[in-house]
Amino acid sequence: MRSLDTQISEFQGIVGNSGILQGDDVSNRSERIWTDETVQARAIIRPRSTQQLSDVLRLCYERDQPVVIHGGLTGLVDGARTTNTDIVVSTELMNEIEFIDPIARTMTVQAGVKLQQIHEAAESEGLLFPLDLGARGSCSIGGNIATNAGGNRVIRYGMTRDMVLGLEAVLADGTIMSSMNDMIKNNAGYDLKHLFVGTEGSLGVVTRAVLRLRELPLTDEAVFMSVDEFDNLPKILKRMDQRLGGTLTSFEVMWNDYYSLICDDGTEHTPPVSINHPYYVLLEAWGGDSKLDHARMEAAVESVYQEHLISEAAIAQSSTQRNAFWAIRDDVEKCMTIKPTFVFDVSLRIGDMEAYVVEVNRRLTERFGTYRIFTFGHLGDGNLHFAINTGTDPDDQLPVERCVYEPLRSINGSISAEHGIGLEKKEFLDISRNEIEIDLMRTLKKSLDPKGILNPGKIFEFTV
Amino acid sequence: MRSLDTQISEFQGIVGNSGILQGDDVSNRSERIWTDETVQARAIIRPRSTQQLSDVLRLCYERDQPVVIHGGLTGLVDGARTTNTDIVVSTELMNEIEFIDPIARTMTVQAGVKLQQIHEAAESEGLLFPLDLGARGSCSIGGNIATNAGGNRVIRYGMTRDMVLGLEAVLADGTIMSSMNDMIKNNAGYDLKHLFVGTEGSLGVVTRAVLRLRELPLTDEAVFMSVDEFDNLPKILKRMDQRLGGTLTSFEVMWNDYYSLICDDGTEHTPPVSINHPYYVLLEAWGGDSKLDHARMEAAVESVYQEHLISEAAIAQSSTQRNAFWAIRDDVEKCMTIKPTFVFDVSLRIGDMEAYVVEVNRRLTERFGTYRIFTFGHLGDGNLHFAINTGTDPDDQLPVERCVYEPLRSINGSISAEHGIGLEKKEFLDISRNEIEIDLMRTLKKSLDPKGILNPGKIFEFTV
Repeated sequence: MRSLDTQISEFQGIVGNSGILQGDDVSNRSERIWTDETVQARAIIRPRSTQQLSDVLRLCYERDQPVVIHGGLTGLVDGARTTNTDIVVSTELMNEIEFIDPIARTMTVQAGVKLQQIHEAAESEGLLFPLDLGARGSCSIGGNIATNAGGNRVIRYGMTRDMVLGLEAVLADGTIMSSMNDMIKNNAGYDLKHLFVGTEGSLGVVTRAVLRLRELPLTDEAVFMSVDEFDNLPKILKRMDQRLGGTLTSFEVMWNDYYSLICDDGTEHTPPVSINHPYYVLLEAWGGDSKLDHARMEAAVESVYQEHLISEAAIAQSSTQRNAFWAIRDDVEKCMTIKPTFVFDVSLRIGDMEAYVVEVNRRLTERFGTYRIFTFGHLGDGNLHFAINTGTDPDDQLPVERCVYEPLRSINGSISAEHGIGLEKKEFLDISRNEIEIDLMRTLKKSLDPKGILNPGKIFEFTV
Repeated sequence: MRSLDTQISEFQGIVGNSGILQGDDVSNRSERIWTDETVQARAIIRPRSTQQLSDVLRLCYERDQPVVIHGGLTGLVDGARTTNTDIVVSTELMNEIEFIDPIARTMTVQAGVKLQQIHEAAESEGLLFPLDLGARGSCSIGGNIATNAGGNRVIRYGMTRDMVLGLEAVLADGTIMSSMNDMIKNNAGYDLKHLFVGTEGSLGVVTRAVLRLRELPLTDEAVFMSVDEFDNLPKILKRMDQRLGGTLTSFEVMWNDYYSLICDDGTEHTPPVSINHPYYVLLEAWGGDSKLDHARMEAAVESVYQEHLISEAAIAQSSTQRNAFWAIRDDVEKCMTIKPTFVFDVSLRIGDMEAYVVEVNRRLTERFGTYRIFTFGHLGDGNLHFAINTGTDPDDQLPVERCVYEPLRSINGSISAEHGIGLEKKEFLDISRNEIEIDLMRTLKKSLDPKGILNPGKIFEFTV
């Protein structure tokens, strides 16, 4: 490996002085959200164009220099973690919205654009980019694509993958692979974007993308319900999905442990329904008819009430009330006030969910005796989140992970519904994926990044 | 290569006598729909299980024996064409629906199951598998997956890719790669199914799949409209999509050449609107509220009428009337009564469509003087179909293809919206995909099928 100085001057030739951060500018940068750790790296290179990024990667490839791509650094699985021998390439200066086509309903963006900028630009054309998550103000679309981000509206609009029509990626050796399809239907050869969506920067670097936009909804109806039996939840989902036609946008479930924590002090949140039920549903539907959609929601809620599937229901009568409902669901940080809190993101069949939650609690009791657990999630997608605290020992993380992940093995659940694998979940990957699948992942890695320079060590072991 | 007899006896050891067709049983089989040609092959092997299929492929791999997979043989681009040195592996005996989970709303199927069986099995549980196409009675789900089939409901439910949660595929060397995910959200490592969806059997053989089911709609509203200016079409699409919330299921457009052909004789079809307009829209919305959905459609249609976007509208008042509307759109074979008729399936931005259709006609006029053209398509997805007749010479196919495909180059259109590339469109692939994309397709082919035994010669040239 060449000296740092030689290498830096080569990078300077590509991106200029202002395109490189070194020393304190690197080590003062937070490694990700919710942590005190900072970035370790030889330098942070900030290309301003795909061509510059390609030139940087070509150089790294020639020098066998490991590279980690940084977007908004809002990932939760150590997918962007670096060591002090890595070069970081940040997309932060590639932050232009290049083009909006309001007729085709597409937007062409560079990888460093923040999700919230995309929302605002779409809305200014009366359109919607449906992906939404708490980190919207800081996460970049390149990172959303690399991790196939999910969020609250997957039941209707899908994951990030389903919102990307085409993309441009730079391969490990610097090749610019432009596959900027902007059509909903295109079966002319392999759909190459899937190599770069959800592969966590391990097969190439997403530099630009064409996003599919949707019509901005004209109406928004939300309802909060209390439910006494788990088995009623999928029945409510089914009935409401059926009655609301294609307008059901979110179906969130909170267990009593979560709902009572958030609402019990009676100060910040007004409980929409009483706090003595085991399950709570927050459901939202986006429609297009301001005269009829409220009546449609009322009739749908009435039908599940008549079927004795719910105990109580509060239908939002204003946007203020709707926001108050969502504030309860979104107040997740209240679960994390006791440190350390371990947060999980698993996925499983709804039919397995009740027994699985019981089993996780059984294992936690057996291992730790007392603990605190808060349970909530996007039940409509089979996605559950836990926030678990077992005391003050950060080394409890691994045994807690075992309690949560191991019971997924026999029911073919996923250790990662939406956050990805990164480094954090790597040792548990075999719970959700078999050896032949992981071998095939390695085959792809080997053919696209034979020297293993891209995001090394993430997702699975790969040795050259 | 071993003698045919030796090879056949080896296959017999795997699938038994009844699992092999030879001689007339091969050459009497039609090669695909709408042709008089028959299958050319050394034999047709019909495994009954994934294991048998894997054993057959392993043997072919060891012997460098080219293999073409046959499903329902309803493809339109010579994607399943064989030569007399190929072995055909047919999935026709792998035709079981293994499992329906009505709570998770999934169905597990073998590759040889017909699409219509899947529809019927889903409906018996009050559920819907939204993929639908004319060949539903004969096409197999394995073929639908391998070609990423589209159809009339893509605007709401997506392509086949969007309806497959997981799959099992056999790789060229016989390895069984089981990735039978059944969850909507699963970001645990690479999503491997995309290697086998839409890659036309060139990277592996799909043997089983987990399909995502939806709620069966409770209401069905259809409207037929006449339109005087092309520019109104995307405005109507936008307005109706907005007003109908998430319920818009189809947005089909017919040019006057198509509509007047189908309706003009006044016997078979009753024209829902007059036949002297340049464009016609057939729109459908599926909802869940029998009391309100008709009123919503009436209000939405009224709004585009008030905006002077449409001339006339007929809203179906019964399922009989709705079926009569669709019978007009579906009577495509009437365009093909004069032989030879060349049929196309292209995709482009709606904003480019009017000028593109004019340009195709200009080129046809310049080249052929007189010709017949019928224009229709899934405009909501940017997908246009043409049926073109230039006389009686089958050799006109290539120059007609040039008239249709070449103008797509400068506007980044697709030569194949939904049919795929196969052999038929292979020489035009470079119109829609650049050299680096095609190189990357070859990289994948090389790493998954290094000997090139799977569906050789299709999509792009590949030499070992």
